[in-house]
Amino acid sequence: MVAAGWRWTEGGAGVSTTAGGAVEVGRDAAPMIEFEPADALGRRVLFTPGPVTTSASVRRAVAQDIGSWDTDTSDSVRACQRMVRRTVLNAGERDDLVVTLLPGSGTYGVEAILGSAVGDRGKLLVLSNGMYGVRLGQIAEYLKIPHVTAEWPEHVRVDAEGVARALDADGAITHVAVCHCETTTGVLNRLEEIGPVVASRGKRLLVDAMATLGGYPCGAGAAIDFDACPIDHITASANKCVGGIPGMVFVVSRRAAIERGEHVAHSVSLNVSAQSKLMEATGRFRFTPPTHVLLGFERALEELEAEGGVAARAERFKLNQRVAIERLGAIGIEPLIAEEHRGYVNTSFRLGAERFDALKTGLRSRGYVIFPQKVTVADCFRVGSMGHVGPAEVHGLCDAVEAVLGV
Amino acid sequence: MVAAGWRWTEGGAGVSTTAGGAVEVGRDAAPMIEFEPADALGRRVLFTPGPVTTSASVRRAVAQDIGSWDTDTSDSVRACQRMVRRTVLNAGERDDLVVTLLPGSGTYGVEAILGSAVGDRGKLLVLSNGMYGVRLGQIAEYLKIPHVTAEWPEHVRVDAEGVARALDADGAITHVAVCHCETTTGVLNRLEEIGPVVASRGKRLLVDAMATLGGYPCGAGAAIDFDACPIDHITASANKCVGGIPGMVFVVSRRAAIERGEHVAHSVSLNVSAQSKLMEATGRFRFTPPTHVLLGFERALEELEAEGGVAARAERFKLNQRVAIERLGAIGIEPLIAEEHRGYVNTSFRLGAERFDALKTGLRSRGYVIFPQKVTVADCFRVGSMGHVGPAEVHGLCDAVEAVLGV
Repeated sequence: MVAAGWRWTEGGAGVSTTAGGAVEVGRDAAPMIEFEPADALGRRVLFTPGPVTTSASVRRAVAQDIGSWDTDTSDSVRACQRMVRRTVLNAGERDDLVVTLLPGSGTYGVEAILGSAVGDRGKLLVLSNGMYGVRLGQIAEYLKIPHVTAEWPEHVRVDAEGVARALDADGAITHVAVCHCETTTGVLNRLEEIGPVVASRGKRLLVDAMATLGGYPCGAGAAIDFDACPIDHITASANKCVGGIPGMVFVVSRRAAIERGEHVAHSVSLNVSAQSKLMEATGRFRFTPPTHVLLGFERALEELEAEGGVAARAERFKLNQRVAIERLGAIGIEPLIAEEHRGYVNTSFRLGAERFDALKTGLRSRGYVIFPQKVTVADCFRVGSMGHVGPAEVHGLCDAVEAVLGV
Repeated sequence: MVAAGWRWTEGGAGVSTTAGGAVEVGRDAAPMIEFEPADALGRRVLFTPGPVTTSASVRRAVAQDIGSWDTDTSDSVRACQRMVRRTVLNAGERDDLVVTLLPGSGTYGVEAILGSAVGDRGKLLVLSNGMYGVRLGQIAEYLKIPHVTAEWPEHVRVDAEGVARALDADGAITHVAVCHCETTTGVLNRLEEIGPVVASRGKRLLVDAMATLGGYPCGAGAAIDFDACPIDHITASANKCVGGIPGMVFVVSRRAAIERGEHVAHSVSLNVSAQSKLMEATGRFRFTPPTHVLLGFERALEELEAEGGVAARAERFKLNQRVAIERLGAIGIEPLIAEEHRGYVNTSFRLGAERFDALKTGLRSRGYVIFPQKVTVADCFRVGSMGHVGPAEVHGLCDAVEAVLGV
């Protein structure tokens, strides 16, 4: 397996590497970061589902002041829009998709797309198989959007037949909302299966792709296919797969949905249509933007392009996951989710709560940050594949896990 | 006039200075920043009402990765809450005020406090004398909050008698919302005049203090007095007076208002009560926080304390304004707003639109960023007093204005 394309280390030297097989996979990979364990802030390596470890170049980019209504900002917005279309969406030529930047956490983006799409006279079907599915329903509740929820167990993906049944049971449904990757568990809900079902019933799709856009390919026949799936809005973090700092999301919308959204928005702040219209016309935000976060996003998109785009990044994330699964499997720590149901941006591993606290503390003293995840079926912890980390860093994490657990 | 207390320059050396009078005021001040005009990004000096110029130390602080649910983050949240209470609010001993951090732009904070306070069964009186007053009404409209607006001309402050008349005309009003400083014009609405009128009618006050908290003193008899004013929520930017990077706001709430807000919130994301309860209990955000923005805010609060607190910072901002008014007045450029109506965080100066474009472009090529402001009564541009700038930098700006305009 070849993981080519990572072009930078913290020192800026170009590397590309060939990794071996089995447990030795990636053992010879060059490090992406110069890492001094337990160093001061900023030298922690985050193996979390976000915020992710950023590159030194992104962190340098955010340390700059620019004026919010100055061309410094609008030029950066235009550059981000261009790179999202060209590289993240693989849709440089398409005019029917618009890219909007929105300050705030990921949940803000999700609330913005639900609130800017369904309206009081529509009805939303929420597909839920984890915490972020539950949150979709909670948002609909707060926004007083008529809605119904179809639920799946946490450890399996949403299946197309179930979606068809839910749609056929309620003709009033106008929109379907789903979380692409439930980072609570790592389950990937396959848009390529769900989308055509939604399309065949003439409904529209709203996607929380917080942890997938930028790490999963877009285009004809790909994981995210705007022709096969009737996606009106899809939203993702500036951080996670793209690798900027957190504090901003981007929304990709069908142009027609922007027009429709003008009449349904529930919020001044979280209003995709209003923000999109001004940004398309002028490259400006409506309110004081997080200029430093914006510059980090621009730099991260440049690095995504330099790495070889989404395909190359996906290969690195998959390799990171493979190293974690093989190394942790060798010491008896197994993934929660079966291969056919899981994505590759982060992985849940079974570990009893009684062992987790010691693991977390021990890893933290060595400079690694991981998150626990309590799901219904089992105690787990998660290892993110995202961020400015490669197999060398995952091996470092796994070495530390072995040392802490004494195996 | 003595402007003591600025303790750092970009190089970190301590300075304190005594400024002369009249046009020569502050001429001998040590620079706060090493400034190479028209240098690359990050070396622009922002004389805008936000984002403001940040210190090198804040920009270093934001260039660090920390885990969102790690103690790095909760420790920083606790430190920010503590410094806001102690230094911004001058209320270290009070237990009835709670400090909540919320990702997003300033308008998000304003929408959050209106949406978490009034509810469908309350009624809001909006006091409006500029764009941010208009926005308060717009938010109420989108959130379907029953409301009525009382308007004043843009160039004068909201007066207490007018507030009394508006309140007495409609007994259904439960809450009053006002923007403390209309940065569109620089008009300061005096809470010390408005608050007692609202209190005497038994109503509650909601304040957009985006550009004043941290730069105007709090406490008994001060500009922001929680005993004299029935403030339920007041919100401000992490950037502006405090000097962090933009992308987060803080909300100061009366504890009782947090309890009441649970039942009225219109939003999952912009929900002050839900965010406050979790943050009080755990030091955590509900959603992935803007960790880098948080670290910048913490550092900026440390610098506010090192400068000597709000009183010392206010003196610097006033001196910055005084230099701008005297220098620009000497070349025939006059403030729009009469002294009795204006605040000191930013100042609008009259300048015809036909001269503004050349001024803006010329200043930009010299490394200075200013914003225009079209108000009804006149074309203007604004000079911010906030940020990591002192009289030396304002003199630099005014020298550049003279050079560009050829006077």
